[in-house]
Amino acid sequence: MKAYDGYLLDLDGTMYRGEERIEAASRFVKRLVEAEKPYLFVTNNSTKTPEQVAKKLKEMDIPATKDHVFTTSMATAEYIQKKMKQASVNMIGEEGLRVALEGKGFTLAEEDADYVVVGLDRSINYEKLATACLAVRNGATFLSTNGDIAIPTERGLLPGNGSITSVVTVSTGVEPTFIGKPESIIVDQALDVLGTSKEHTVMVGDNYDTDILAGINAGLDTVIVHTGVTTKEQLVTKERQPIASIDSLDDWDTKL
Amino acid sequence: MKAYDGYLLDLDGTMYRGEERIEAASRFVKRLVEAEKPYLFVTNNSTKTPEQVAKKLKEMDIPATKDHVFTTSMATAEYIQKKMKQASVNMIGEEGLRVALEGKGFTLAEEDADYVVVGLDRSINYEKLATACLAVRNGATFLSTNGDIAIPTERGLLPGNGSITSVVTVSTGVEPTFIGKPESIIVDQALDVLGTSKEHTVMVGDNYDTDILAGINAGLDTVIVHTGVTTKEQLVTKERQPIASIDSLDDWDTKL
Repeated sequence: MKAYDGYLLDLDGTMYRGEERIEAASRFVKRLVEAEKPYLFVTNNSTKTPEQVAKKLKEMDIPATKDHVFTTSMATAEYIQKKMKQASVNMIGEEGLRVALEGKGFTLAEEDADYVVVGLDRSINYEKLATACLAVRNGATFLSTNGDIAIPTERGLLPGNGSITSVVTVSTGVEPTFIGKPESIIVDQALDVLGTSKEHTVMVGDNYDTDILAGINAGLDTVIVHTGVTTKEQLVTKERQPIASIDSLDDWDTKL
Repeated sequence: MKAYDGYLLDLDGTMYRGEERIEAASRFVKRLVEAEKPYLFVTNNSTKTPEQVAKKLKEMDIPATKDHVFTTSMATAEYIQKKMKQASVNMIGEEGLRVALEGKGFTLAEEDADYVVVGLDRSINYEKLATACLAVRNGATFLSTNGDIAIPTERGLLPGNGSITSVVTVSTGVEPTFIGKPESIIVDQALDVLGTSKEHTVMVGDNYDTDILAGINAGLDTVIVHTGVTTKEQLVTKERQPIASIDSLDDWDTKL
């Protein structure tokens, strides 16, 4: 691989696996720090604030501050702000999304909202879904933080935000704009935050269908690391390939 | 219309509109009683017991006992019983579904269930959806009482059971078997209850996409009454037509 000006890094499956450390990830990020290369963790997790994400990374001996974290909740709030300064938003989601929306000064609203945003909400209930449907039927712009269909947990694969979002899609017949990976929206915004160009930034992740496609869709070089979701056997079946695939971030043996 | 041996009647939009009476419906059912013709109310409402439905009908001056009511919850329980006598069932739903399943002696279970049944549940939460997804991933047969995407209420169109069901469909990639209208399953079972033949039974309803298609799919004559969902303008665009369309059940002017 060539040396890049900026590095976009996935979290789960790339920096850690659930609560399990990936030692090579810690070493890799320390190499980035040493080489003074800007990096940004880009995550489809909408539930956590950047502070919470950075805390977890530090506990795993990965150098990170809140400014190194870019969540799909932040990307969603940024997306709305570019379209409408004083928007009112009907939100389904947890703390990470609420803090991101309130941080942009948006008003939270019910069925008369300008925007409906659906993010993962493990306190989902019928009233929240009903209000979101009414708002979309009333003409609100419908966004979803990400289309992930399932979340890996110790119990097995639980419903992801894409499946919760489908309640509103199926009931109203309106398709949302998805913000997170594999969409290019979140990657384009991450580049703005990092301040590097498409040509000189690389996207690194373990999941072909989210991380690698997001990078490809945004026109970036991509590197897949087989420490998470996508196996080598699965990768060879894909039409659009990353520029490199490695078993561990320790195998990234060129200058950063 | 010819005289039929048996009459399958829809409820909302045909017998009443929400809490509003339809006087012609009351007169029509009284004519059926007088003519000693068997009739059965066939409903996609999975939340109510037959006793509760009959009570509402009687309050609207429509002759009805619990034995005149066939809900999609009853049809779903019947469907499972035909496939497996001692099934365990993971249920998302309200009282009508619970009573119907327990009435067949099924055990309610979690992610190790033989069947997953999704019916409208206005106390839906993430844990219920998670357990249903795990059960389907574990190999449970996936059923849904009905695919209605929206429920008309005073507040507007709220999420129907088809939209709630989609959480499990999207997350697991497994399509459910739908039991309610427009599927023929519920109509075939209603005929068994009524004890009349396809050739001599008519399905009457206001909603082309559920009532009329259910009748057509099951091979019955169908009559649409324009007191509810489907307008005349919408009806003419449909390829498969009912044998008659009337503005009011008072216009059913042939011998019953």
